[in-house]
Amino acid sequence: MVAEHLAKAFDQDISQLRGLIAEMGGLAELAITEAMEALVKGAQPLADGVIARDKKIDALEAEVDQLVVRIIALRAPMADDLREIIASLKIAGILERIGDYAKNIAKRAARIEGRTQFEPLTLLPAMADIAASMVHDVLNAYGARDADLAREVMERDAKVDAFYDSIFRNMVSFMVENPSTITSAAHLLFVARNLERIGDHSTNIAEQVYFAATGGQLADRTDRPAN
Amino acid sequence: MVAEHLAKAFDQDISQLRGLIAEMGGLAELAITEAMEALVKGAQPLADGVIARDKKIDALEAEVDQLVVRIIALRAPMADDLREIIASLKIAGILERIGDYAKNIAKRAARIEGRTQFEPLTLLPAMADIAASMVHDVLNAYGARDADLAREVMERDAKVDAFYDSIFRNMVSFMVENPSTITSAAHLLFVARNLERIGDHSTNIAEQVYFAATGGQLADRTDRPAN
Repeated sequence: MVAEHLAKAFDQDISQLRGLIAEMGGLAELAITEAMEALVKGAQPLADGVIARDKKIDALEAEVDQLVVRIIALRAPMADDLREIIASLKIAGILERIGDYAKNIAKRAARIEGRTQFEPLTLLPAMADIAASMVHDVLNAYGARDADLAREVMERDAKVDAFYDSIFRNMVSFMVENPSTITSAAHLLFVARNLERIGDHSTNIAEQVYFAATGGQLADRTDRPAN
Repeated sequence: MVAEHLAKAFDQDISQLRGLIAEMGGLAELAITEAMEALVKGAQPLADGVIARDKKIDALEAEVDQLVVRIIALRAPMADDLREIIASLKIAGILERIGDYAKNIAKRAARIEGRTQFEPLTLLPAMADIAASMVHDVLNAYGARDADLAREVMERDAKVDAFYDSIFRNMVSFMVENPSTITSAAHLLFVARNLERIGDHSTNIAEQVYFAATGGQLADRTDRPAN
């Protein structure tokens, strides 16, 4: 009876933890999409919304931290459960950073001048779509404890890196030919870099999902391009 | 007798955990210093050393993860001890990222051409010294559970941000006037950004130290410049 009660309380804790992570993930994905729309269109109210909503993601991370401490202290979870809880804690930290990258993109929306001239403003949304899909799918992998999907998300990061390299080269050539655009172009370079980092961080989440599901580490950490 | 034995075993676990974190911190600080020296001098063997040694930091993070799971499962720590263990886990994750930023700086060493013309190559090492000192001191704060020192490290981040803003403006002006240097200048912009992020991450560690020492959150997360 007591054991049953404890098991039920533990299941509720885990549900709450998963719910918080899912909420963080949903907000992070939305932040990426809306930050990119704000950037491409120069839509300041949209950018402001992304920036303001980032505080919610930060607050959710703090909530996850407190909940994890409470679950471990009260329920003393073992083995698989403990691995999942630890992984959730790390995933919350990574999602908070993904939110920061999206916020950083939103902050640059006001700083781009002469939008129509920049070819990367058509490439960046395609890159952002892949990065946002990685966030989306890796959280599905987390929800379903799906190590295979986690691995598939990791593999997708190569596409994001390829976009990044291409945009970096494109931007540098453009800056050389149009020195007057350099400030805006530098901001777009940083946007590309932020998206590249979102891809990396999704890969880091995938590693945690893999760790939680299997107890093992994936062979190699993905390497970041040096551009 | 049994309780005494358990307490001793737990103390040994915590010592081991602190030792791993200290080792990660020392390697991360060294990576920043050597990456900057490699960048300024164009010293490729030094850069290669930083890049190779980053794997050691990654391995230490994995070791911390496994140790934390083991400590929680075997010792069922409560209250303050649990908070410290959770903070250590998060700190290890942040130190791994600081190592990545330093590695990223090292990778750019080979890509800078015409070093003597760039004024930021004298500003960046001063900025790096502050960032490295933040890593150093925040780990002292962790070792001593010193919430005041943690707060002081957080305040130092404003200096790193000021350097970043100054270098960003300086670089953009320089690029406008010297379009042929744009590729190298873009790499230096990213170096400045990496150092700015190291400052932010040290601040995040300070928040964890504060959390572990007091159980509370520091008022506000530092905001990142949008440049």
